[in-house]
Amino acid sequence: MNTKERILEAALVLFNDRGERNVTTNHIASHLGISPGNLYYHFRNKSEIVFEIYQEYERLVDQTLQVPKDHELTIEDKAHYLEAIFEGMWVFRFLHRDLAYFLESDERLRDRYAEFSRRCLENVGAIYQGLRKADLIAITDEEITALAINSWLVATSWATYLRTAVYDSNLEDQITRDRLRKGIYQVFALERPYLKEHIKDEVERVQLSFLEQ
Amino acid sequence: MNTKERILEAALVLFNDRGERNVTTNHIASHLGISPGNLYYHFRNKSEIVFEIYQEYERLVDQTLQVPKDHELTIEDKAHYLEAIFEGMWVFRFLHRDLAYFLESDERLRDRYAEFSRRCLENVGAIYQGLRKADLIAITDEEITALAINSWLVATSWATYLRTAVYDSNLEDQITRDRLRKGIYQVFALERPYLKEHIKDEVERVQLSFLEQ
Repeated sequence: MNTKERILEAALVLFNDRGERNVTTNHIASHLGISPGNLYYHFRNKSEIVFEIYQEYERLVDQTLQVPKDHELTIEDKAHYLEAIFEGMWVFRFLHRDLAYFLESDERLRDRYAEFSRRCLENVGAIYQGLRKADLIAITDEEITALAINSWLVATSWATYLRTAVYDSNLEDQITRDRLRKGIYQVFALERPYLKEHIKDEVERVQLSFLEQ
Repeated sequence: MNTKERILEAALVLFNDRGERNVTTNHIASHLGISPGNLYYHFRNKSEIVFEIYQEYERLVDQTLQVPKDHELTIEDKAHYLEAIFEGMWVFRFLHRDLAYFLESDERLRDRYAEFSRRCLENVGAIYQGLRKADLIAITDEEITALAINSWLVATSWATYLRTAVYDSNLEDQITRDRLRKGIYQVFALERPYLKEHIKDEVERVQLSFLEQ
């Protein structure tokens, strides 16, 4: 791993642990035992580091939300999408903690995120079309558009929900991996009414497994 | 209107227009043509003002989310709930712009908001039970619990969605009343699969009216 990659890795750990606002480039350099000058050689400022990490997150989501070309979609695919998306939220959780703030303070990030969101909504729509084609859900095109937006809203607001609506004063950090993964149950709940009868029981078992973790 | 009420009213206008972080107690006093000392007589600091306005918002939502005692729930009631909730989000939009930040910086607000959220989810659940009792939706208790949470997630994240995912660089302010009200369409979409056949067409007309505004 080269120095640039080590800086990104250390920054991600520190941002997740302490919140991005509480971490300076000096903290990151000192954590790695390198000089601030060495860090600045790779990144002009902290925003550059955030932007680079953000792009990693984007690539992960883009790669995940693809309809397979070699087989019809299955319920296992659907569960896999959600697990991968929520795992990405866990790995890059500092971004979701403060997303509106990041976008407000960095125009480049803001434009890129809007573009990314549009792409994701299209990809999620294509996945629902694939589930319909595989005879797993019965749904109209209008319903797919609204459902894709609602899935996006539920998934992206789940971390905030944990930190606000179901704040638990016994927890040091509100966003644990287990609490986060319970959001998968909620996305399944959105789709459930559209399921074809023959698949309902199987999906319910998969859905419930995320609640019980 | 007494001075205290005038301070709250002016603060709400300024917070909505400029964002709470960009407004000081001196701005508020100067906007009203009163001395900072006079303002401090009523509110020790800006957090006290935010807390008082937050409580107004809470009262509005609590009063709205009640099942009527004199008649069975109708689709008009349901539309009315959503219109009132989204109108409240519009009137108190500065709160939704920065909610996670407010809760993080004020422990009292954070505990109160978690309590408020629990109450809202119960009230929303009671409304769905009322719609089921009125023979308008077919839904299980487990589905009601998940649907209430998803309605909450969609409604409370809609303002953030406007500012991030569908950011429009042509707009000076991303949260306009019209854009905000389109969120009502999304909440209707959540409930639509549960509607009884005899009411589907009527609800669809109501739902679409919010998209076309």
